[in-house]
Amino acid sequence: MYKLILLRHGQSEWNLQNRFTGWADVDLSEQGIQEAGNAGKLLKEGGYEFDLVYTSLLKRAIRTMWDVLDELDQMWVPVVRHWRLNERHYGALQGLNKAATMQKYGAEQVKIWRRSYATLPPALKESDDRYPGQDRRYADLSVEEIPLAESLKDTVARFIPYWLDTIAPQIKSGKRVLIVAHGNSLRALIKHLDSLSEEEIVGLNIPTGIPLSYDLDDDLKPLRKTYLGDPEVAKKAAAAVANQAAVSEIADG
Amino acid sequence: MYKLILLRHGQSEWNLQNRFTGWADVDLSEQGIQEAGNAGKLLKEGGYEFDLVYTSLLKRAIRTMWDVLDELDQMWVPVVRHWRLNERHYGALQGLNKAATMQKYGAEQVKIWRRSYATLPPALKESDDRYPGQDRRYADLSVEEIPLAESLKDTVARFIPYWLDTIAPQIKSGKRVLIVAHGNSLRALIKHLDSLSEEEIVGLNIPTGIPLSYDLDDDLKPLRKTYLGDPEVAKKAAAAVANQAAVSEIADG
Repeated sequence: MYKLILLRHGQSEWNLQNRFTGWADVDLSEQGIQEAGNAGKLLKEGGYEFDLVYTSLLKRAIRTMWDVLDELDQMWVPVVRHWRLNERHYGALQGLNKAATMQKYGAEQVKIWRRSYATLPPALKESDDRYPGQDRRYADLSVEEIPLAESLKDTVARFIPYWLDTIAPQIKSGKRVLIVAHGNSLRALIKHLDSLSEEEIVGLNIPTGIPLSYDLDDDLKPLRKTYLGDPEVAKKAAAAVANQAAVSEIADG
Repeated sequence: MYKLILLRHGQSEWNLQNRFTGWADVDLSEQGIQEAGNAGKLLKEGGYEFDLVYTSLLKRAIRTMWDVLDELDQMWVPVVRHWRLNERHYGALQGLNKAATMQKYGAEQVKIWRRSYATLPPALKESDDRYPGQDRRYADLSVEEIPLAESLKDTVARFIPYWLDTIAPQIKSGKRVLIVAHGNSLRALIKHLDSLSEEEIVGLNIPTGIPLSYDLDDDLKPLRKTYLGDPEVAKKAAAAVANQAAVSEIADG
């Protein structure tokens, strides 16, 4: 049996400002930093030891990971950062206020961008400052790999190959892995692990800063999954994410 | 021409307490955290961009590296942690107060441990809690690789192969590299780069928290080296390290 821990980064400054984030490199809010520390404490209380950590190229995930490793006194554990763990790219919506976007495009349209599995938000142009091809951290990506916008389906399509080719073999070799990532890249993985339908995955809300522990069988099929700590806290945190989605019609991103 | 930046971690808690540190995993002091942030600011002012970072498995170097990447807004840059960049292992002296050690062994003996290039401090036993073989972060090392104590010569012998086989090829491939390490692992590298004698290298004092910038030719031979920032500050910091050595007859470690 293998253990795998998934962790969604703590609240970011743009969560707080109700703006679409995606690949915008926004830092944690004060509350987010606290959530990260709490996640570390939960893992410490559980006696977790890691051999390998994966995270994205975005600082809200990296800082969450730092705070967790610090709390665990496992700062020396190897860390792999990879763009395939990044948040879903929100295209031309990135940086926009969610309420203003609903006024501009209509609540129904925004709901579709958020709730559907395969619909793309408006795409960036390559001349846009927000185009990842203008950021040197993505210099190794081919033009085809650089997103102009992504649906959740696209996020699944770019993350799962990395899971299968890179992360899963490490777990099978006995490495105890922690993944610190984002609402939608974790949805992508959970859809795959739990064999969820498109409808099921868009309805799934992952709380920030609460480690999700998977027990996996020899084929990495889930035997059990549980949020660490008080189950009521995890339930409330997931409900808060769902409520945020209901209020603004957009969760995550 | 290639650029390479070397950085010695900020002051640690045991520097402050005047204890032998070596591979003991001691954190930065408050002053050390400030030094790390200042190092980041100097690199930022210089407009430095990195493609790859190397550091040790010890948290005083890792935290310095974190603070630098944070200050530079380059948290996404890949980081490789490796035991071969660790501080010189101080054997059975680790954790001991330096003044008390001088009283016990005599100032002359301690001076030899510190000043000579090849003399070993008293060795650990494998049953000792401080033996690295008891720490899971060193689980991949062979028994021959795990030190019971090291001279500076031993530190050179285990770091330079890693430099030659791993770091140097990355630099030659065009990667802009930052190395965040320790007084003696950096001495090891500087001895190699600058072709210093054994006498010259034991007399060289590297200030904490001041980035040392090398310009290297196609064969990675130094064309120029300079401490970033105010040269007077770097000179004073190096003198402070030298003074500390003079007072306690032991520098670094």
